Amino acid sequence: MSIIAYLGPEHTFSHLVARKRFPQGRLFPCASIAEVIAFAQDQEEHLGLVPIENSSGGMILETVDLLLEEDSPLFIQEELSLRVRLALVGHPGTPPRIVFSHWAPLGHCRRWIETRFPRAELRVAGSTAEAARLAAKTPGAVALATREAAAATGLSVLHYPVEEEILNLTQFVLLGRQKLTSGGQETSLVFSLPQKPGSLCSFLEPFRAEAINLKRIVSRPVPGQPNTYVFFASLEGSDAEPPMERALKTAEGRALRCRSLGSYPVLAPYES
Amino acid sequence: MSIIAYLGPEHTFSHLVARKRFPQGRLFPCASIAEVIAFAQDQEEHLGLVPIENSSGGMILETVDLLLEEDSPLFIQEELSLRVRLALVGHPGTPPRIVFSHWAPLGHCRRWIETRFPRAELRVAGSTAEAARLAAKTPGAVALATREAAAATGLSVLHYPVEEEILNLTQFVLLGRQKLTSGGQETSLVFSLPQKPGSLCSFLEPFRAEAINLKRIVSRPVPGQPNTYVFFASLEGSDAEPPMERALKTAEGRALRCRSLGSYPVLAPYES
Repeated sequence: MSIIAYLGPEHTFSHLVARKRFPQGRLFPCASIAEVIAFAQDQEEHLGLVPIENSSGGMILETVDLLLEEDSPLFIQEELSLRVRLALVGHPGTPPRIVFSHWAPLGHCRRWIETRFPRAELRVAGSTAEAARLAAKTPGAVALATREAAAATGLSVLHYPVEEEILNLTQFVLLGRQKLTSGGQETSLVFSLPQKPGSLCSFLEPFRAEAINLKRIVSRPVPGQPNTYVFFASLEGSDAEPPMERALKTAEGRALRCRSLGSYPVLAPYES
Repeated sequence: MSIIAYLGPEHTFSHLVARKRFPQGRLFPCASIAEVIAFAQDQEEHLGLVPIENSSGGMILETVDLLLEEDSPLFIQEELSLRVRLALVGHPGTPPRIVFSHWAPLGHCRRWIETRFPRAELRVAGSTAEAARLAAKTPGAVALATREAAAATGLSVLHYPVEEEILNLTQFVLLGRQKLTSGGQETSLVFSLPQKPGSLCSFLEPFRAEAINLKRIVSRPVPGQPNTYVFFASLEGSDAEPPMERALKTAEGRALRCRSLGSYPVLAPYES
């Protein structure tokens, strides 16, 4: 039976998705996205669940950069998504002096916090779950975290959801060493292209010829090599179908390197 | 004479670039990228200097999203860049209990800090300069900031550079209401495309036909509309030249909307 690694500790958004998808599964918390990916690479029966894109923050670059690594043996097994709603959790009472959270929500929600608690100090925790744990033991502190984290640490939900006006959807991928052979709705690729005019257009052309839709694309600068880029792209359709198969073959011939992360089902969003 | 707004306060990396580029200029610190852009939109003689891409962290999404706004009257006047080197600044002595910085360096340098100071608390400041100011008045605290910020707050440089192994280049754009008419080396566009197969390929095709190189491209999800994307792209060459002029005209006809941010010179990198 599979063991599913996720970005821990318990009561993070990754944990919430892992529990919703695998209610009976053996779950294994990791301290970083890199550890989740290393765990999934280690053995056939290991899977790794990592966030890949947020509808307001964009691609999760740590995940993309790890998927871009040349020698990765991983394929995407599924794409999952979660409608993310943060809660402000803490002890009811006076306005907080300290707000703990992961550095990403602290950045995204900085205005929201500053408007309500202009004098509060923002402190970085390793995860939203760790933030709740720190808030529980620090007088005058609150955290931006899940409602489950509040329950697990004995805190109250003071405000929910934070920043309710925006639909905030985080997309995750489930990674494993198995290459699926059927049932995919979407295919993802990592590729690098010659530094010459028209190379991206030429790479995309075979997909246009087969009427295959591009879902997302991002060019990532190669660290230490400004103006050199690698790409991550997701296309609608399965590589078990002849049009995608033909398009991939032609496109690969136009890339310096191109690795398919496989074709996989896209599941309906979970609520948080 | 122009007034140049930058992401302040004084002694941030944006301030460093502004002073290197305009040593005699009237500089105006702003509290956020949004304020810099609003200042530049306000009057003809106002300019705004904002970071747009970092070679290790990727595009600065706050800037990109503001440039994507439909009614912006701004054009890029110049692209500038800075080789960013952070310093660990503080009072010499015992290992720090607290590390202040802007949330982006705290995220990027988290491993570096944790390896050296596993027990230190990470606290978010509005900028690297503010981080140095907070470190100066907080016992047991240090900051990740510029060396100039250390000098300005009476702190010592304890370690420089932080994370020296990676070339970390931050690219900035100087924004203003003037559309330059000559001398450009690079042209930037924001555009949105019909949600149909091949639309990005068709948009890029005229640039390939004219042998125009694509420097960077990013697709941004539209907040609140998952799976809807707008694009920011930079192309090598000037729109004062017939090949770019022809390509732009054809490409615009294939977009839902397309706005040129103009053609502008690209300056050599500054050192920090």
